[in-house]
Amino acid sequence: MEIGAELDENIIRRVRDSFNRQGLMAHLGAQMTGIRAGQVTLTLPFRPELTQQHGYFHAGGSSAIADTAGGYAAYTLFPEGSAVLTVEFKLNLINPARGERLEAMGRVIKPGRTLTVCQLDVWAVDNGQQVHVATGMQTLIRVQGEA
Amino acid sequence: MEIGAELDENIIRRVRDSFNRQGLMAHLGAQMTGIRAGQVTLTLPFRPELTQQHGYFHAGGSSAIADTAGGYAAYTLFPEGSAVLTVEFKLNLINPARGERLEAMGRVIKPGRTLTVCQLDVWAVDNGQQVHVATGMQTLIRVQGEA
Amino acid sequence: MEIGAELDENIIRRVRDSFNRQGLMAHLGAQMTGIRAGQVTLTLPFRPELTQQHGYFHAGGSSAIADTAGGYAAYTLFPEGSAVLTVEFKLNLINPARGERLEAMGRVIKPGRTLTVCQLDVWAVDNGQQVHVATGMQTLIRVQGEA
Amino acid sequence: MEIGAELDENIIRRVRDSFNRQGLMAHLGAQMTGIRAGQVTLTLPFRPELTQQHGYFHAGGSSAIADTAGGYAAYTLFPEGSAVLTVEFKLNLINPARGERLEAMGRVIKPGRTLTVCQLDVWAVDNGQQVHVATGMQTLIRVQGEA
Repeated sequence: MEIGAELDENIIRRVRDSFNRQGLMAHLGAQMTGIRAGQVTLTLPFRPELTQQHGYFHAGGSSAIADTAGGYAAYTLFPEGSAVLTVEFKLNLINPARGERLEAMGRVIKPGRTLTVCQLDVWAVDNGQQVHVATGMQTLIRVQGEA
Repeated sequence: MEIGAELDENIIRRVRDSFNRQGLMAHLGAQMTGIRAGQVTLTLPFRPELTQQHGYFHAGGSSAIADTAGGYAAYTLFPEGSAVLTVEFKLNLINPARGERLEAMGRVIKPGRTLTVCQLDVWAVDNGQQVHVATGMQTLIRVQGEA
Repeated sequence: MEIGAELDENIIRRVRDSFNRQGLMAHLGAQMTGIRAGQVTLTLPFRPELTQQHGYFHAGGSSAIADTAGGYAAYTLFPEGSAVLTVEFKLNLINPARGERLEAMGRVIKPGRTLTVCQLDVWAVDNGQQVHVATGMQTLIRVQGEA
Repeated sequence: MEIGAELDENIIRRVRDSFNRQGLMAHLGAQMTGIRAGQVTLTLPFRPELTQQHGYFHAGGSSAIADTAGGYAAYTLFPEGSAVLTVEFKLNLINPARGERLEAMGRVIKPGRTLTVCQLDVWAVDNGQQVHVATGMQTLIRVQGEA
């Protein structure tokens, strides 16, 4: 399937159901705002509960939504009954993460039967302006059943 | 200063004050449980608000406390008036993160005037047993003032 | 300067002079085949001296030219009298590296006074077909003088 | 098998045979100087053919031997008939790599049926003094047959 293509309703529901079971995403206030084949976007509105010591978004928030976006981007390409686990990820924090919300995109750059590699990017939206705040890479493994 | 050495009260207070200003750490429920020269430990007790879709700790929690532990490990070595920023980090998730709490340790392996490199490790404590759940590396930059 | 823009002759000469002093690049047989602002391409023709145990290009060759391409991509943006050092890099090897040559591109995605971040990509050209064999990220630091 | 334990002659021969088929290692002049269970050491004597522009060891040499040491460290733990592929690696270059030789050690920190994670370290030996020049992490995959 082509990366970025529209997905079947069943797959979208499967992705949303799984995302909605993630206690952490609800606790942070993250929403899944885009689901395409191999490409998932999450949005994280600003709250004081998400800050580091200077009042900006904590890198832990950026990395949590980046990792999750990449995981679900891979998951959209997996057959039913599969689960996805992050093997590793790496993130460069390239600009201060301040603004009214973060947007994280995970995008599959190498799909595979066992391993999938995603590009991860996070932008801050500040007064309507997008600033690229983090970029990275992630390796995921597909496992059968509940991991 | 030798990594792992005891720290002056002033430095410990400076570290704790900064940590206490991090909205995200409070929101996750993380505590700073060890502060040595170039070595900081955080503890994150289990809560349903920290889970991924299978009920284990979400990797976003592991990475948030690992990044924070490494950041403060570097910070203990900086002169007053400095701030620390994460340049990048990489984490391998090597075992399922389940149990009653996570413990993250950041440890400086290369201190520097501008850049500092830390080793990051996270363990899950499950029925008193420690399981190594994540290991990684982090690059930090020292900046003057409030970053 | 815009990434990908044409460069002044002086800068191109400075980049080539530095590249030509790298004993390793000559020993591997790498050539600098593209120099743009913040974007450098190296080509590495196949030789049995570059193989791993199955006769393909060794990942060590891919990573050497990827790291070098990224280093010079950053260097094109630095004022005269600066040197560049790799702080760290990460590479995912996503396809077998076989064919008549490798092409590595380093491209600046975040220029900075102190730190620069590059995207690294390597392709194998096999019977005229390009296969993406590695992708990664690199952090570089600018230093005054000879590092 | 415990990491660091002595290995059976057959395994050592299998590792050496594979290493000896790597054209790149011979071309660089690398020798395999230590083979233990899950732990392999390579030595790379200085030659002008291994330098970067300032006359030190090129990071491409450090990363080539680090990646290879880690690959064979994993390989020592695999059943016969397996091959090993690097999935990804990340290396921080923490000190200038100058001296009469480099020593790279790959050490398994998480063995697995499918994926193995190694710690990578490189030291330069300069007038008998060891300097830690690079540290990193590597993910490897075991495949059946010739990969």
